[in-house]
Amino acid sequence: MIFITRRERFSAAHKLWNQNWSDEKNFSTFGKCANPNWHGHNYELFVTVKGSIDPDTGFVADLKEIGKILKEKVISKIDHKNLNLDCDFMKDVMTSTENLAVEIWNQIKSDMVTLGCELHCVKITETENQYVEYFG
Amino acid sequence: MIFITRRERFSAAHKLWNQNWSDEKNFSTFGKCANPNWHGHNYELFVTVKGSIDPDTGFVADLKEIGKILKEKVISKIDHKNLNLDCDFMKDVMTSTENLAVEIWNQIKSDMVTLGCELHCVKITETENQYVEYFG
Amino acid sequence: MIFITRRERFSAAHKLWNQNWSDEKNFSTFGKCANPNWHGHNYELFVTVKGSIDPDTGFVADLKEIGKILKEKVISKIDHKNLNLDCDFMKDVMTSTENLAVEIWNQIKSDMVTLGCELHCVKITETENQYVEYFG
Amino acid sequence: MIFITRRERFSAAHKLWNQNWSDEKNFSTFGKCANPNWHGHNYELFVTVKGSIDPDTGFVADLKEIGKILKEKVISKIDHKNLNLDCDFMKDVMTSTENLAVEIWNQIKSDMVTLGCELHCVKITETENQYVEYFG
Amino acid sequence: MIFITRRERFSAAHKLWNQNWSDEKNFSTFGKCANPNWHGHNYELFVTVKGSIDPDTGFVADLKEIGKILKEKVISKIDHKNLNLDCDFMKDVMTSTENLAVEIWNQIKSDMVTLGCELHCVKITETENQYVEYFG
Amino acid sequence: MIFITRRERFSAAHKLWNQNWSDEKNFSTFGKCANPNWHGHNYELFVTVKGSIDPDTGFVADLKEIGKILKEKVISKIDHKNLNLDCDFMKDVMTSTENLAVEIWNQIKSDMVTLGCELHCVKITETENQYVEYFG
Repeated sequence: MIFITRRERFSAAHKLWNQNWSDEKNFSTFGKCANPNWHGHNYELFVTVKGSIDPDTGFVADLKEIGKILKEKVISKIDHKNLNLDCDFMKDVMTSTENLAVEIWNQIKSDMVTLGCELHCVKITETENQYVEYFG
Repeated sequence: MIFITRRERFSAAHKLWNQNWSDEKNFSTFGKCANPNWHGHNYELFVTVKGSIDPDTGFVADLKEIGKILKEKVISKIDHKNLNLDCDFMKDVMTSTENLAVEIWNQIKSDMVTLGCELHCVKITETENQYVEYFG
Repeated sequence: MIFITRRERFSAAHKLWNQNWSDEKNFSTFGKCANPNWHGHNYELFVTVKGSIDPDTGFVADLKEIGKILKEKVISKIDHKNLNLDCDFMKDVMTSTENLAVEIWNQIKSDMVTLGCELHCVKITETENQYVEYFG
Repeated sequence: MIFITRRERFSAAHKLWNQNWSDEKNFSTFGKCANPNWHGHNYELFVTVKGSIDPDTGFVADLKEIGKILKEKVISKIDHKNLNLDCDFMKDVMTSTENLAVEIWNQIKSDMVTLGCELHCVKITETENQYVEYFG
Repeated sequence: MIFITRRERFSAAHKLWNQNWSDEKNFSTFGKCANPNWHGHNYELFVTVKGSIDPDTGFVADLKEIGKILKEKVISKIDHKNLNLDCDFMKDVMTSTENLAVEIWNQIKSDMVTLGCELHCVKITETENQYVEYFG
Repeated sequence: MIFITRRERFSAAHKLWNQNWSDEKNFSTFGKCANPNWHGHNYELFVTVKGSIDPDTGFVADLKEIGKILKEKVISKIDHKNLNLDCDFMKDVMTSTENLAVEIWNQIKSDMVTLGCELHCVKITETENQYVEYFG
């Protein structure tokens, strides 16, 4: 069993805002992340898969194929987009980094099986000072 | 003459959109940067000042004072904001990194003189693959 | 279960010196890290907590609150300090990065429970070439 | 139980090429990584060991000793070398990062026991966008 | 006048070898960089252009266009290649980072004029510990 | 004319303290940098030289030779040392990063001439948020 990780990047706008709450509660809870006109980040996405090494290629899985799936299922939907307004898989949840990691996991989990490996971790870095990891 | 640089960071939403142009021209020129619902970045701001060394302190200027000015005049107006909608000093220009560097220069140039040094460069990194430098 | 990590930084002086040993043994064991007049580092501290996502906020825990606790219980005691002389929680141990990780864990473990999550890992980077991880 | 990690770096040439396959299959599988005249990388190697803290030193193990072993058993054989042609421990396998991690593990595992700790992970970064981790 | 920089990356094999010299002189001068079977690096290329800001776009030049030129004229010829054997513009010179910077400058200088700006600097990072800058 | 830069690193303790001033003035001016028991940093030193390219080597200067000089004249005197107490060339000045850059310049300027190039810049990074550049 060996683990390989691919990094992708995306730049997106979002805000943290709970529509069931008053403005006051939103601002006191989320602070500047609740700015009504949005803010944004350069996110880094690290996807780790695990599996055994194919002796013919030396690969657990073809990282180019993983990259293609990430671009189609994830990056094309969130890069240079608004996470709250533009992204189908984030429609019903708060656009926190935690939820983003979970939903990206759900978008790609079965595709990793198709590639002959198993999804192990989705890690997202929101700023240089904070990141989230989800292991399913 | 010696040069000192302070880094600050801000996370902001923006879009590139020329209101005098058709939608078609905006999309063909700015591509995904013209997404109507915005996108965003973690920007890094590097401010370089120059001057002579004060023998009593060993300083060209007090970086804590430079930091205070940057927070008051720049960061508080753009961090977790929308550059197109929320920032007074970006109201009349395209929110490109080039214009952002020029306008930040204008916001802080005279304050650096007050601190006993001279503004030398405003550098802004928009992504890990591109940055802008302005020397006045 | 999801994991979130916050990075903090501190700059401190220290030396590795066992008072029960001869000078010779200290120098042969710790080399330049035993310099009597101290040396120092820019340390990076990564604190990882785990928990379930609150559907109202999308958060495992409020990273601002974690940051406040880290500043009060840890950073204020070691940033721009001497780890051997100034820091109450390092008084009785060698100021290795290993011990620093363990003692920081002890300083903050119960506070994480108060915030509704569980401390998972304390990671400290001493230089770009070495780091320590403690999982309790 | 605590974990410490040491980073080493090496610059090497290699290519991905399966000698049992036709040229066509090699090129279609490995793409530009099959360039006949080689290409190369600045690899980063992170070796993590685990153990208990020696109260006299504060160390799990002496990182200088770990560094010496890494230089003798690994770095001297692959730094500024061709992984396919020059390195004894890569002779019989594809020079993928996966296989490189496994073979480096095999080179150093017993030496870590000699140092009083246990090898936990060999991580290799091939580019800023991909890395491999092997835990034995 | 404002300066914008775009980063590109390439991974290449090379060796330092002067064919007019004896083996002994090559090895004593170039050390491990003269390894007959090559070695390699992940190079980073930073191309800086300067010009005035177009008020309609906010741009000095379209970084996407600069990226296209860099890919066509430079990256496609050196990424996953052997700098000594595969690259037309390095055929007649030592493949030092210095010469690589000069030759890349020559490859792209006139194209920058076509884009309405002026080439200012070609910077190449060979390892994290060394880089070269050429200003024409 | 082309420019090459070599990075070295050193970890040192220091404090900012003007012996001609009262304790109060020292603390109000230098804040936590005046901690009596010292603090410390991982400094990064970037030394840039300029010159013409030797056609036989492709080099402006041999970076290995520059590295040797930096280790002998600079790094051996400040790495794992106390800048205020242990370093001969910092004895008479405040140990600010500005003064450190100037004094390192003075230590190595003539040696660069001996190597056939000219010292262009000494840059020192004290933390990820601040650095100093000196051009003589």
